[in-house]
Amino acid sequence: MKEPIYPNYYVAIMAGGVGSRFWPGSREARPKQFLDILGVGKSLLQLTFERFLPIVPASHIFVVTHEKYRDLVKTHLPQITDNQILGEPSRNNTAPSVAYTAYKLHGINPDAVFIMAPSDHVVLYESEFMRFIHRALRFAGKNDALVTLGIRPTRPDTGYGYIRYEGETEEPNAVYPVKQFTEKPNLETATHFVASGQYLWNAGIFIWSTKSLIRAFEKYAPDIAQIFEKGKSAFNTDAEKDWLQTFYPTTRSTSIDYAIMEPAKNVYTIPSAFGWSDLGTWASLHAETEHNTDNNVIVGDVITDEVTNSLIRMPAGKLAILRGLDDFIIVDEEDVLLIYPKSKEQDIKKVTEQIKREKRTHYL
Amino acid sequence: MKEPIYPNYYVAIMAGGVGSRFWPGSREARPKQFLDILGVGKSLLQLTFERFLPIVPASHIFVVTHEKYRDLVKTHLPQITDNQILGEPSRNNTAPSVAYTAYKLHGINPDAVFIMAPSDHVVLYESEFMRFIHRALRFAGKNDALVTLGIRPTRPDTGYGYIRYEGETEEPNAVYPVKQFTEKPNLETATHFVASGQYLWNAGIFIWSTKSLIRAFEKYAPDIAQIFEKGKSAFNTDAEKDWLQTFYPTTRSTSIDYAIMEPAKNVYTIPSAFGWSDLGTWASLHAETEHNTDNNVIVGDVITDEVTNSLIRMPAGKLAILRGLDDFIIVDEEDVLLIYPKSKEQDIKKVTEQIKREKRTHYL
Repeated sequence: MKEPIYPNYYVAIMAGGVGSRFWPGSREARPKQFLDILGVGKSLLQLTFERFLPIVPASHIFVVTHEKYRDLVKTHLPQITDNQILGEPSRNNTAPSVAYTAYKLHGINPDAVFIMAPSDHVVLYESEFMRFIHRALRFAGKNDALVTLGIRPTRPDTGYGYIRYEGETEEPNAVYPVKQFTEKPNLETATHFVASGQYLWNAGIFIWSTKSLIRAFEKYAPDIAQIFEKGKSAFNTDAEKDWLQTFYPTTRSTSIDYAIMEPAKNVYTIPSAFGWSDLGTWASLHAETEHNTDNNVIVGDVITDEVTNSLIRMPAGKLAILRGLDDFIIVDEEDVLLIYPKSKEQDIKKVTEQIKREKRTHYL
Repeated sequence: MKEPIYPNYYVAIMAGGVGSRFWPGSREARPKQFLDILGVGKSLLQLTFERFLPIVPASHIFVVTHEKYRDLVKTHLPQITDNQILGEPSRNNTAPSVAYTAYKLHGINPDAVFIMAPSDHVVLYESEFMRFIHRALRFAGKNDALVTLGIRPTRPDTGYGYIRYEGETEEPNAVYPVKQFTEKPNLETATHFVASGQYLWNAGIFIWSTKSLIRAFEKYAPDIAQIFEKGKSAFNTDAEKDWLQTFYPTTRSTSIDYAIMEPAKNVYTIPSAFGWSDLGTWASLHAETEHNTDNNVIVGDVITDEVTNSLIRMPAGKLAILRGLDDFIIVDEEDVLLIYPKSKEQDIKKVTEQIKREKRTHYL
């Protein structure tokens, strides 16, 4: 049986980042969430939006982004109104984004319970995802609780934060208190974490009521709470944009993990598994999506000969003829062509830094 | 002292081919001679045109091409008039092209002596080129002679035809009778040719008077001569295009070498050296143009790391980030990206044949 749509449920999709590790696919002017990274004809933002439609109506889905991406969001999601786009005038990390969303939704519905989720992740098993999301919504709706979905780790990845949870045995429908958040560990620690069975990946998918969240801000980040408290009368009115322009940039730049989740005592998690990937880099996209027989992941019109273990992305209408390449990332995106060894992916950052130093920022 | 411009001198630039071995740079709709292959801001056709300007005025330079490239020629050479573009309605190999040019120029000036030269070759030493050209023009102006410049071979290339000339010693200003034309030889024969010192490369650069050439056609290819003889009254008038449309396609498809140069007894050559290259393939472009310290030939905005012995061509305004590539051809041209081992260059033809079979001819 499908869970009925609950009138107090909302979704806030975080779509303000750039996803710079997907350069040259992602650009400052066209971040990763606006790309059809999977080659399915829809952007990650559109896929994320559609993933939540079985839970809430389109009118309950909000998008938190940088103001400069407002028009892009409108283009990708013509179903939502201007008031459903929270446009930040500056990038102050995630705590102010979350606070702004909490106060604004609280103004719409003081009984709101909302899911805060990144716009650029992938979920392979949507029905499993639903199951965990609904468990979290029910729990957050009934308790003064900040819930974060924890992903059961499948490898000792050193690129994620970890959540330690309490509870020796696992029960269905269980929600567990979080004992500790840990920043990205080294490989030894990560291996220990995974083996212990008591650690989960921090995927940045939160479920909470605006009440509980605002209470947490008042307690652990009162400076941020004070600012948004003063914006209450402006939110969801024509005055919102001007208010933001003036006051949003005055908030402290800090992460939601550091400002709220780590100090708070009422944080809970649900150990989850739903084929999650943050598609953090080209190599992870290669690792986590479907390969052909040569272990290539290909988007676009490509003729290969002796090409193996590679990720290839061509724009629509362009043909690539490739031969004699192993373990490469090949991305042809408008005014940039990247041909780079997949195993050296982390060095691409040095190249973009060089381009920045050379002030050729139109390529970034 | 500069040679004075002689009023009977003309130039006919052959610009009807496609240069398919430069795909995806060259296309059916945009042949090699219209490309800035050298990355100097000018097409090969423009470079060829400018090479002849010290010899004849622009009004004496004609371009022989397929009718469908007329507008492209006009765009590249706005200096010339419509009557200076000889547009063939069909591709019947070089003999009909040469005959058409001979009869048309003969109608303009019955004392015409003209240089017939390909539009897509490169000459590095222009003053040397001038020297040989002027020697040929003087000889062809005074004698009933068909002159072809022979290039002193620098390697036993099996991709060219060879010219055997008579004359044991070499004198300055000498013009030698041609003893024999030889089709593309095998490596053993080519090595013998080069060692003998009596063979030259056939570069397809001819110098002759319209009188001598028409006489040769009448004698060795009377069927072709008869057709163009009938067109005389139409050439250089408004009736030319209609006449061509009707009669040009009826000419026998055959090469000037086979139809005239091989049977004729009055063929002469000048052993020449002026940094000539026919830029036949991507690999030859790499071999014959200037390399950087990594032995790369790069046109465009390219950041390389561990890239060696490669030819890289990017369109203006596009940046390439390349790493870990040795001995590659990388050509990014509009709707095609080619990344191919340079040593396997000859296999590109198989790929274009495949594309043709798949009826995706818009890529060709």
